[in-house]
Amino acid sequence: MSPEIPSDHSEAQAGNLSEIRIQVRYSETDAMKFVYYANYLIYFEVARTSALAELGHPYWEMEKRNVLIPVLESHCEYLKPGRYGDSLTIRTRRWRKGSARIRFEYRVLRNGEVLAIGHTEHAFMHPEGRAIRPPKEIIGLFPPWEK
Amino acid sequence: MSPEIPSDHSEAQAGNLSEIRIQVRYSETDAMKFVYYANYLIYFEVARTSALAELGHPYWEMEKRNVLIPVLESHCEYLKPGRYGDSLTIRTRRWRKGSARIRFEYRVLRNGEVLAIGHTEHAFMHPEGRAIRPPKEIIGLFPPWEK
Amino acid sequence: MSPEIPSDHSEAQAGNLSEIRIQVRYSETDAMKFVYYANYLIYFEVARTSALAELGHPYWEMEKRNVLIPVLESHCEYLKPGRYGDSLTIRTRRWRKGSARIRFEYRVLRNGEVLAIGHTEHAFMHPEGRAIRPPKEIIGLFPPWEK
Amino acid sequence: MSPEIPSDHSEAQAGNLSEIRIQVRYSETDAMKFVYYANYLIYFEVARTSALAELGHPYWEMEKRNVLIPVLESHCEYLKPGRYGDSLTIRTRRWRKGSARIRFEYRVLRNGEVLAIGHTEHAFMHPEGRAIRPPKEIIGLFPPWEK
Repeated sequence: MSPEIPSDHSEAQAGNLSEIRIQVRYSETDAMKFVYYANYLIYFEVARTSALAELGHPYWEMEKRNVLIPVLESHCEYLKPGRYGDSLTIRTRRWRKGSARIRFEYRVLRNGEVLAIGHTEHAFMHPEGRAIRPPKEIIGLFPPWEK
Repeated sequence: MSPEIPSDHSEAQAGNLSEIRIQVRYSETDAMKFVYYANYLIYFEVARTSALAELGHPYWEMEKRNVLIPVLESHCEYLKPGRYGDSLTIRTRRWRKGSARIRFEYRVLRNGEVLAIGHTEHAFMHPEGRAIRPPKEIIGLFPPWEK
Repeated sequence: MSPEIPSDHSEAQAGNLSEIRIQVRYSETDAMKFVYYANYLIYFEVARTSALAELGHPYWEMEKRNVLIPVLESHCEYLKPGRYGDSLTIRTRRWRKGSARIRFEYRVLRNGEVLAIGHTEHAFMHPEGRAIRPPKEIIGLFPPWEK
Repeated sequence: MSPEIPSDHSEAQAGNLSEIRIQVRYSETDAMKFVYYANYLIYFEVARTSALAELGHPYWEMEKRNVLIPVLESHCEYLKPGRYGDSLTIRTRRWRKGSARIRFEYRVLRNGEVLAIGHTEHAFMHPEGRAIRPPKEIIGLFPPWEK
């Protein structure tokens, strides 16, 4: 359906897939009775936090070691609306672009139906604000990006 | 109407009243088409930020001088719902309780009609987490609380 | 520790306790590195949603049957700050006040330590805005409030 | 600096520019002390709401006439972080893509420095969920998109 995330069962992608479940909160809905569009970016954050934790590098540990990954770019396409109480699945893939930039690709599903597709890209930064080289044990977990 | 905030035109309270206007954002509504209840606490934050700035002590300046005022307590009564696009007025009064605790009282109005009434109470804290004595020039701006 | 919520193991309260776990999202933190104070009201919403679902009356089902429970009052005391990545437990008790008002009491814990204590009170409303009598099968699940 | 929004003083674009000011709220910051990335999408919403209102078609009026404009796509590039208390300017341009899709382009500035650049695209929808033809008096206000 989208060129952005390859078929989930691709042999080539084995291991590069994290999955979480999120139940839509009332606070996340809007007067249209839909999930407000900015909240998908929050779901993306929860999904990449979970992906990093699964890989043994929870973001709160990275922060303690002075490795921050601020967002450089976000993108989301909204195909169908989410609603209060929905149990959503977020599937996340991760990629490396060059030596110092990472990319997460997300797919939000409800009962197998795709509601939204998006991505974020991130740099590596010291808490004082300067760019840093990503730690090898982290960048090593991100395969090179295949567009 | 409420015992919490004395009549706005009381001679005794002259000077202890700040007022701001906020237009309800779509992001702040929920599936009931009302302003989601937690967002009134955000309006309260905007109102006390404005009150402090008017008094010559913007909170972002206080933070740079290592004076934080974390919230100890919040309370809100919801009388009528706010809706998308509403132009709300927030009236704020400030009080001192003892030597190290301050209290803000808020009234949210739409065209003179009260939608919500609330308060917050705050301590004074150093960024490292320990309680501090409030700076005199700040605590001096808070009259003793009259319940 | 608090008079608001009786000891969890009280015989008298058997059955009147719901418990959920929430992991703090980055979006929920603020520049103090604490969970922003309004977000506890969102945790309370998630907790009462879960309590109602456990009792067989998910709020999204109630809404479909034209039974809304808007918030009349919220209150929260902040004892210790929550932080990014914290795994929080929210314990919820429910009460009936008179024939048409319900009350939820919440306790937010991290590793057994209480971070926040609060409550919300709610009315019963038709989607068109008029007060309604609570359905018997719902109000029957709320024991009379013992202050 | 960006190909997305032409120079503000271009003769050709006269009239296709709305501008608002937003002060960063504490609730909008995160533990990195930056404006949390999803909140730029909220600023975009405030900016397009204001643009529509300036043109004589406030979105809350459109909703009453059963014209909704759900978001199909959002995109944001984050160049420099916003911080608590910052006074941001959001500049918005509007475009029509084909006969039934509109596009808003946004630029977030602080003292003339660009912090973020983004866009959103929207369809026209009836509250019951079906696509509708945009009202002429609205679509007529959106010039054809020049990439």
